[in-house]
Amino acid sequence: MSDSDAMTKRRRGGGRAGHATRRGTAAIEQMPWRLPVNHDRPTEPLTPEGVERMHNATMRILEEIGIEFLNPEAVEILRKAGCTVNGENVRMGRDMVMEYVGMAPASFTITPRNPDRTITIGDRHILFGNVSSPPNYYDMEVGTKVSGTREMCRNLLKLTQYFNCIHFAGGYPVEPVDLHASTRHLDVLFDKLTLTDKVMHAYSLGPERVEDVMEMVRIAGGLTHDEFDAKPHMYTNINSTSPLKHDWPMLDGWMRMARRGQGLVVTPFTLAGAMAPVTMAGAVAQSLAEGLCAIVLAQIIKPGVPCVIGTFTSNVDMKSGAPAFGTPEYMRATQMTGQMARYYGLPMRSSGVCAANVPDGQAMWETEHSLWAAIQSGTHMVYHAAGWLEGGLVASPEKFIMDCEVLQQLQRYMEPEIWDTSDDALALDTIAEVGPNGHFFGTQHTQDRYTKAFYQPFLSDWKNFEAWESAGAVWTPERAHMLYKRILDDFEDPPMDAAIREELSDFVERRRSEGGAPTDF
Amino acid sequence: MSDSDAMTKRRRGGGRAGHATRRGTAAIEQMPWRLPVNHDRPTEPLTPEGVERMHNATMRILEEIGIEFLNPEAVEILRKAGCTVNGENVRMGRDMVMEYVGMAPASFTITPRNPDRTITIGDRHILFGNVSSPPNYYDMEVGTKVSGTREMCRNLLKLTQYFNCIHFAGGYPVEPVDLHASTRHLDVLFDKLTLTDKVMHAYSLGPERVEDVMEMVRIAGGLTHDEFDAKPHMYTNINSTSPLKHDWPMLDGWMRMARRGQGLVVTPFTLAGAMAPVTMAGAVAQSLAEGLCAIVLAQIIKPGVPCVIGTFTSNVDMKSGAPAFGTPEYMRATQMTGQMARYYGLPMRSSGVCAANVPDGQAMWETEHSLWAAIQSGTHMVYHAAGWLEGGLVASPEKFIMDCEVLQQLQRYMEPEIWDTSDDALALDTIAEVGPNGHFFGTQHTQDRYTKAFYQPFLSDWKNFEAWESAGAVWTPERAHMLYKRILDDFEDPPMDAAIREELSDFVERRRSEGGAPTDF
Repeated sequence: MSDSDAMTKRRRGGGRAGHATRRGTAAIEQMPWRLPVNHDRPTEPLTPEGVERMHNATMRILEEIGIEFLNPEAVEILRKAGCTVNGENVRMGRDMVMEYVGMAPASFTITPRNPDRTITIGDRHILFGNVSSPPNYYDMEVGTKVSGTREMCRNLLKLTQYFNCIHFAGGYPVEPVDLHASTRHLDVLFDKLTLTDKVMHAYSLGPERVEDVMEMVRIAGGLTHDEFDAKPHMYTNINSTSPLKHDWPMLDGWMRMARRGQGLVVTPFTLAGAMAPVTMAGAVAQSLAEGLCAIVLAQIIKPGVPCVIGTFTSNVDMKSGAPAFGTPEYMRATQMTGQMARYYGLPMRSSGVCAANVPDGQAMWETEHSLWAAIQSGTHMVYHAAGWLEGGLVASPEKFIMDCEVLQQLQRYMEPEIWDTSDDALALDTIAEVGPNGHFFGTQHTQDRYTKAFYQPFLSDWKNFEAWESAGAVWTPERAHMLYKRILDDFEDPPMDAAIREELSDFVERRRSEGGAPTDF
Repeated sequence: MSDSDAMTKRRRGGGRAGHATRRGTAAIEQMPWRLPVNHDRPTEPLTPEGVERMHNATMRILEEIGIEFLNPEAVEILRKAGCTVNGENVRMGRDMVMEYVGMAPASFTITPRNPDRTITIGDRHILFGNVSSPPNYYDMEVGTKVSGTREMCRNLLKLTQYFNCIHFAGGYPVEPVDLHASTRHLDVLFDKLTLTDKVMHAYSLGPERVEDVMEMVRIAGGLTHDEFDAKPHMYTNINSTSPLKHDWPMLDGWMRMARRGQGLVVTPFTLAGAMAPVTMAGAVAQSLAEGLCAIVLAQIIKPGVPCVIGTFTSNVDMKSGAPAFGTPEYMRATQMTGQMARYYGLPMRSSGVCAANVPDGQAMWETEHSLWAAIQSGTHMVYHAAGWLEGGLVASPEKFIMDCEVLQQLQRYMEPEIWDTSDDALALDTIAEVGPNGHFFGTQHTQDRYTKAFYQPFLSDWKNFEAWESAGAVWTPERAHMLYKRILDDFEDPPMDAAIREELSDFVERRRSEGGAPTDF
């Protein structure tokens, strides 16, 4: 074994072993890392005819109305491939759309610096990521909404790493506005790559940022450029500027990542009644059109590059114009999008979202509605699944921890052993043995199974009222806050080879000295 | 028209008209009364083979192990019908079970004193009832758990009447322990029948109580005895004493109500790991066996009498033995029971439940899990859908109001207009009209629809953080408390003819003077 082989082995293997050892002494007992499989048949409000009508409307938007691509390079690529171009307006026929969309794989993997954290997008998996991009922060100690800082961002990244039910890192869990915009991406990516070993995301906010992040992910993985390009090691998510527009930096990042074969997620933000029709079917059709044309662009650039169709179709409060989340209309829009994602053979992204300002009952019922919509729609990637408040304007560690309790329960919900009907599970002998006057606590059947029979929460309090009261009568967000502190105290960085850490650090300093990225976006 | 005809007409018609008029000036804007239709295809964890295995296990419990019927009259009826009787143990063959269960209707109506509040149990309807039977009460003003009183019970009954999303009255929303047990049923039924005009429930806790309640419901409806017997005007719910037992008073009430053709709900309380096997399939099979044998008894007594199979299969916390609710295991048990209820052609009851002690985030995620299990299982009657805390030991008005906000959202979720794909809904012309640089607020398409396009909450706060904070930074349970006070201030009894009210009152006084009911149950 050469020295460099040994180093690679240590990098990859040592980390995992160390990691596995630590878990036993963690602040809480949590479920192990796994990629949950969503067994439930999707909820499908649209009839087959409704699916065809939705498809036809989506195609007519692309054929007759067109989408503005505010990026000359993208327009030229689309023109050459056969689209009808009129200034920035691009129209494309349904045959072309279906041909290119058909090149995108139904599932794919993304391999982060720790290969044990590789995720599969598709194949009935449902995976969860942290809240992304709120400019503000709230916690129970601060007690109000404040601007995000690097420290807050680092703390939320530690939660992202800590919880096994979080499968990928989204965008910045809170925007660290105390860092200068020109070099913020360098500092946060350094934090992300050293504090977590999970799949990374890059914002498509200018060529320098995208290139810097790809380079840092490559360095962190100990990869050559060829190794990086050989398969997805990260992903980006772009949003259209609804209605009917893709802007320059998003398209630029999209094309850069496509060329290097990385994961591509497009998520139109179509609020019905504001940036999309007030009727949900119209809002979904518009969202699909905006998403599919970006996927066509990616497939022209690199046939077979993995693409995910996202949905963020919700509705506004028609009294105030404020966006609302986890609404009945949001749920049905997500389910309809799921039907269409299957129609197009694409993996799908949705979100865990709420309009509530604090981690209370409203926050949880709204978030539950969005998470059930994700399950019901057959969503593969759930963005913002932990920590989101105020329609995405606030990140909260207590909400993060409350959400992770729910995510663990949903993950357990998907384990087929619960609905096992083997003779052992039907337990007729035990029912006969206990008879009408006994109980099941003491039976061998129970004794053999009780430690693993049921989900054990880490945050839910199942004590009776009196025991709960004498333990301090602590409500859920306060309990979450205490856990947050325990987890931070307990946190250890995932292992990283010292040489790689130094190379990353050197890269950040070099790029900082070069001035970072332009800040005109 | 005779005088008595006119009085009948006034009783029934006047009430409805008066009621309709009041709604416009209510404390909150709520959705109208309706019987929601659950369009979602059920979630079915069991394969067809799994269904057959579950059925076979259920039948073998009835055939080989048997159920104890602690009521000689019931045993004699079952013996005569062909069951194998051994003391109190009754066994019955699957052919007999399937024959009698097949006589129960797949759907039926219950007509309360206000015929506009008639409900249909079955036919894909999902209906919600108030929390039933907690001995204790909690509200944000009291701040701790206290024993229930008549006043608390009356206040919760007012919420039951007030909210259009509550379709039927369950048992006492809190047990008024300040009322003597011998006459408590008379006082509470007087309160229930005067404060609400919705479908009534009777506890099967002794012949006198059951007969008194049937008589009071008959009087309140202005019905002759024959009219009362002609169709269901009320219902009872009995619980088996798991494992494998039905006790005397439950069976007595069950048989009395069966003879008079009223609604019958049987709900075994099978906590996996305590009163049932630790494995969910075993717990469900035992629950089904305990339920089906009661339905056989009812069908022998009165073929075709409406019966509902209930489920209350959850799990215990294996660390403490405490019951847990809204767990992943609870959800799957409810879904499996739904599959079996369809197999047997029976309407189904489940619940809205949680283990949480206060109306916080945990309360809502646990309740959401149980409500989604109800939807996914094809449940027709959702007991305890509003106001339940601490595993059913506490009733809370704030939780009641928070739950009603969720129930309204679920009711809206079921309205097919959300997933309409007509040309109007797809809105291609509007998408073309707005183009890439406009917004949809001002279009005619939006203007024509915006007042009714989206669900409007009465409790959720969709303001941004700053507006929410300057309005007092009020968390959800405190907002619910304020609404509770407003609703009580605003509440008016539903109309009742003075002569009927007097007759009811006279009945209560006569029965009180006779000593009420024995209190040995």
